Amino acid sequence: MVIGVLTAGGDCPGLNAVIRGVVARAERRGAEVLGIRDGWEGLMDGKLAPLRRDDVRGILQRGGTILGTSRRDPYVHGDGYASIRRTVEKNGIDAVVVIGGDGTLRSALRLGEEGLAVVGVPKTIDNDIAATDMTFGFDTAVQIVTDALDRLTTTAEAHNRIMVVEVMGRTKGWIATYAGIAAGADAILVPERQLDLRQIADTLRARHREGRRYSVVVVAEGIDLPRAGGDVRRETDQFGFERLGGVAYRLAPELERLTGFETRVTVLGHLQRGGTPTAFDRVLASRLGVAAADFALEGRFGTMAALRGAEIVPVPIAEACAEIRGVPASLIDVAETFFG
Amino acid sequence: MVIGVLTAGGDCPGLNAVIRGVVARAERRGAEVLGIRDGWEGLMDGKLAPLRRDDVRGILQRGGTILGTSRRDPYVHGDGYASIRRTVEKNGIDAVVVIGGDGTLRSALRLGEEGLAVVGVPKTIDNDIAATDMTFGFDTAVQIVTDALDRLTTTAEAHNRIMVVEVMGRTKGWIATYAGIAAGADAILVPERQLDLRQIADTLRARHREGRRYSVVVVAEGIDLPRAGGDVRRETDQFGFERLGGVAYRLAPELERLTGFETRVTVLGHLQRGGTPTAFDRVLASRLGVAAADFALEGRFGTMAALRGAEIVPVPIAEACAEIRGVPASLIDVAETFFG
Amino acid sequence: MVIGVLTAGGDCPGLNAVIRGVVARAERRGAEVLGIRDGWEGLMDGKLAPLRRDDVRGILQRGGTILGTSRRDPYVHGDGYASIRRTVEKNGIDAVVVIGGDGTLRSALRLGEEGLAVVGVPKTIDNDIAATDMTFGFDTAVQIVTDALDRLTTTAEAHNRIMVVEVMGRTKGWIATYAGIAAGADAILVPERQLDLRQIADTLRARHREGRRYSVVVVAEGIDLPRAGGDVRRETDQFGFERLGGVAYRLAPELERLTGFETRVTVLGHLQRGGTPTAFDRVLASRLGVAAADFALEGRFGTMAALRGAEIVPVPIAEACAEIRGVPASLIDVAETFFG
Amino acid sequence: MVIGVLTAGGDCPGLNAVIRGVVARAERRGAEVLGIRDGWEGLMDGKLAPLRRDDVRGILQRGGTILGTSRRDPYVHGDGYASIRRTVEKNGIDAVVVIGGDGTLRSALRLGEEGLAVVGVPKTIDNDIAATDMTFGFDTAVQIVTDALDRLTTTAEAHNRIMVVEVMGRTKGWIATYAGIAAGADAILVPERQLDLRQIADTLRARHREGRRYSVVVVAEGIDLPRAGGDVRRETDQFGFERLGGVAYRLAPELERLTGFETRVTVLGHLQRGGTPTAFDRVLASRLGVAAADFALEGRFGTMAALRGAEIVPVPIAEACAEIRGVPASLIDVAETFFG
Repeated sequence: MVIGVLTAGGDCPGLNAVIRGVVARAERRGAEVLGIRDGWEGLMDGKLAPLRRDDVRGILQRGGTILGTSRRDPYVHGDGYASIRRTVEKNGIDAVVVIGGDGTLRSALRLGEEGLAVVGVPKTIDNDIAATDMTFGFDTAVQIVTDALDRLTTTAEAHNRIMVVEVMGRTKGWIATYAGIAAGADAILVPERQLDLRQIADTLRARHREGRRYSVVVVAEGIDLPRAGGDVRRETDQFGFERLGGVAYRLAPELERLTGFETRVTVLGHLQRGGTPTAFDRVLASRLGVAAADFALEGRFGTMAALRGAEIVPVPIAEACAEIRGVPASLIDVAETFFG
Repeated sequence: MVIGVLTAGGDCPGLNAVIRGVVARAERRGAEVLGIRDGWEGLMDGKLAPLRRDDVRGILQRGGTILGTSRRDPYVHGDGYASIRRTVEKNGIDAVVVIGGDGTLRSALRLGEEGLAVVGVPKTIDNDIAATDMTFGFDTAVQIVTDALDRLTTTAEAHNRIMVVEVMGRTKGWIATYAGIAAGADAILVPERQLDLRQIADTLRARHREGRRYSVVVVAEGIDLPRAGGDVRRETDQFGFERLGGVAYRLAPELERLTGFETRVTVLGHLQRGGTPTAFDRVLASRLGVAAADFALEGRFGTMAALRGAEIVPVPIAEACAEIRGVPASLIDVAETFFG
Repeated sequence: MVIGVLTAGGDCPGLNAVIRGVVARAERRGAEVLGIRDGWEGLMDGKLAPLRRDDVRGILQRGGTILGTSRRDPYVHGDGYASIRRTVEKNGIDAVVVIGGDGTLRSALRLGEEGLAVVGVPKTIDNDIAATDMTFGFDTAVQIVTDALDRLTTTAEAHNRIMVVEVMGRTKGWIATYAGIAAGADAILVPERQLDLRQIADTLRARHREGRRYSVVVVAEGIDLPRAGGDVRRETDQFGFERLGGVAYRLAPELERLTGFETRVTVLGHLQRGGTPTAFDRVLASRLGVAAADFALEGRFGTMAALRGAEIVPVPIAEACAEIRGVPASLIDVAETFFG
Repeated sequence: MVIGVLTAGGDCPGLNAVIRGVVARAERRGAEVLGIRDGWEGLMDGKLAPLRRDDVRGILQRGGTILGTSRRDPYVHGDGYASIRRTVEKNGIDAVVVIGGDGTLRSALRLGEEGLAVVGVPKTIDNDIAATDMTFGFDTAVQIVTDALDRLTTTAEAHNRIMVVEVMGRTKGWIATYAGIAAGADAILVPERQLDLRQIADTLRARHREGRRYSVVVVAEGIDLPRAGGDVRRETDQFGFERLGGVAYRLAPELERLTGFETRVTVLGHLQRGGTPTAFDRVLASRLGVAAADFALEGRFGTMAALRGAEIVPVPIAEACAEIRGVPASLIDVAETFFG
């Protein structure tokens, strides 16, 4: 049996651990693995090479992906299943393990319907893929943000200052909620909750009246903050250059106006998705890679490896694509217990 | 309503986060909290004081427990329920939140049967308490061990050396298995598996024949390694002084003899249970504290707060005490996929 | 003897370690310490309280300053020496240890000339104070930036991308140079060198031609980057709100234009000056605090504690104020050895 | 010009950074580098290969040494200069950069006297080499120990316990002193000071009388602790197996006897010399590598690259070998300021 493996989309700590898991398990069970370069692009253009146990030594701890990645999609930038089918047939590939996010899984699902023998591994640091309890990369992102918040929380700065920290989460507030709880943030703004700036300002003012001199507000990049005179989420400057941190930079002056406190901004940006994974993510990613190889070998196509409780189980890829999973109200409620 | 809270047994990262969770939630819901000093001892001897939101500020990140702890047990070192009943009645305590391990929960269960309104929070870095998916403190211990293994894995030392690393786990091999997977250990020895030293030696020799110069073996302190002329698990030297690392120090010469490779030992010991918790543990511990306060306020006595999938739910304390939870075969199987 | 101690200006990891050093040493030698609140403000307004060994337990590892700080200056916001003199006489203060940066030391120098018995401890994460080999806080800032660069250096992103990382350094490029060398940056832009964007672009293009897909450029916030149509260093948006990262956001589109590679920005900002100090900074800060107490007790007024080789020695405060110390050419030369 | 480079002796964080520095600088200046395998062994047996810029990419952050190392010495295990001379002549080597500790530098000095064109780079995590302010690897070791002490310092354990932590330092107490100051240890035992256990016990008892429940004692492995019935520094068990931690395990029961407090031991061992270097060590190691290449190219044979203040300068290797550098009394005095 020959298993192809590819990684698609943006960086996510644990990608290499998944690849290593697929290769180690496949080799143990007598199968061969072909590493596909640069995501779907490599499968469309036939860029692949054998991947053996020795090729994946020492990569468990490393960020990035040894296979490269791209954002090219077979249905958007290619001819759909056609060229992929040629690559698969030419190289005798019996199954493809696809490690990718929402969009990648959606394409995998469609390719599967057209005939590709595909097994998915959900990948997003945002933790918003349905049908799995947690995605790899999320714990690392939360730890990085928590470490940053720990640093930003102790400060010798002047009286009555607010620090607004913008974290990833375009549609859901998982990282903001987890890291905010972990670091004891004084307010956490997520897309799941209706924004009430006046109430937040009241809480912060009350907090400072009781003797605190400093507050930390964590905000998910995707909150819906109406802009004076527009609603563009990410700003574009005079060079047409995308500028991260639109939300925090728009939120800060509002908070300053409502509280009367000096407000500062930190945007963590790309920091959150690079580097070595936490132990938790290395274990989760290794288990997902091993399971994906097993599912491929057992012919469970159209499924993806998911964490359910303490187990890794196969679930239909379609289930993962059915919705974007938000932070449950009970968890936001825990976060709010500690505000102020 | 008045809720007492105590921490019992050894150190575990996240204790303060649980206490803070209980206090913050209780105060939000209009209840008072009394902090009980030094575990059961404080409940027996009436050492307690009000614990307010302001008393638990800034403790989320800190190791240890602001309440102190002890290993004194009401049934072993006291008069059972009698003196505890007096403290409870004298101070108008309506419920006691008990944060502790296996033995502590067992006593809580018995006190509950005698009439104490008790809610449990399971505490062990060993992760071997049943009825919950994971215990707080475990993730931190695994991360600490993984960081250490990362350091021990890159080495400039001479050819053909084995590093044996002993980690916590008296009865079960959770830390060894997780950290071993996370750091890519070449062998992991846990109590859940029959020890076959000859097979391990064969694997390591094969590995070195293929070009590796160095191997890392992780061993749980509780594996059953027959001692030449005895079976004492922990050595006692001429001063009657307990010496950690008995197993690793006995294992190393055996491996040296069977492989012919120089073998060295590192015992991580107390390092594994101190200091600031990981973000994961801070979130888990905060959630458990909040839930325990909720359960106390809702009169769900005799239960403990447990993680099930993505939820915190009440489970009967009796369920947690029914067995010591071991590492499932499927996870050990994942670990073994990467050996050699 | 009574020694007053104050901290002034922005946050800097190690402030508490210096305070603890002053207190522990003074107490050992039989002197009393008065902690002055909120920098010069407390000395002007008489906000002070005894500071004993027990008050400084457990603060060594903590960021911030237990004394508070402010940016109020006696000559700018007060009546110079007059009100300070009153506080000093009223409280029987024999000497004041002033922990602060360039501006603070300048005021200390002037107050010293007017009669205040003052001992300085240089404080800046920027490392640009003259007359000392290194300032405390700098090593921590460099380590934080290096950790961030390590994360940003491993990436799974698409081909031919440049990451521009802006770090602190308004007048000199110490953090950029050290962290850039430590993380293997592909280009480092500092105020000490004439900016030649075309040459940098050539180096990066050559590097990518040879097979690299990704480059990291570290830039000190204070480089002189002429702005199209202006020379404002920090942007101010429509709310009059200061926005960090002006330089990186102006540099990135220029690099994108000159190289043709996609360019992204990360601004580390406030992250660099908070949180627990590195071991190096804790030792340096402790030594400086101890030495400052010694200098005060020995009547060496008008001096500051400075690191020279492996020793802490007293140097005239005037010497520290004589110039802003830049990165020597030999060190920039080392950095450039690794470019491309 | 052809420069050979080798690493000898035990592991030390920063070795790869030095190698990379030599290669990058040599290549910039038009020289070739030959990497010599496994220390002196490779120079004796002719195991070498060209080392180019591309071969040293990505190694700056990595522990270990890509060249391998060994403890074989030309004068102890070889024929002195004879076979080395053959390798040098056969491969047209004009100079050899030797990265090693005390013993290695001593051999380099002797080979230099016999005619080898040699440049040294001092290497020891112990920081006890003379003629340089600090050695690379030391800062990393101190940070690792400090992190461990931070974890061991916060504890929820029972009343009146002492934790004895053994750290590296066979002849001098640099790591113990620095990490002890950095973590606020309650006592630090180093070979530079006469051991007075009774006085230490008095200090600890006084400390606990004043309300502390827990103390941390840092001990350098090389202190002279007379053993009941012998003076063997490292114990050997029944398998003839070297056991680290002899001193701490002998010290602990003594302290227990003298104080009446329960005492526990942690031996950090091999942890201290592996893994990624701190930013400080990466910069220092890179500068030393660059300087060593410069010295080789400039014909400054018989010298080693040393840190003096903020500069890297050439000093005679003989100077480094003249004595083992101990911790100065003034620094031990700073440490003692914080005891109790």
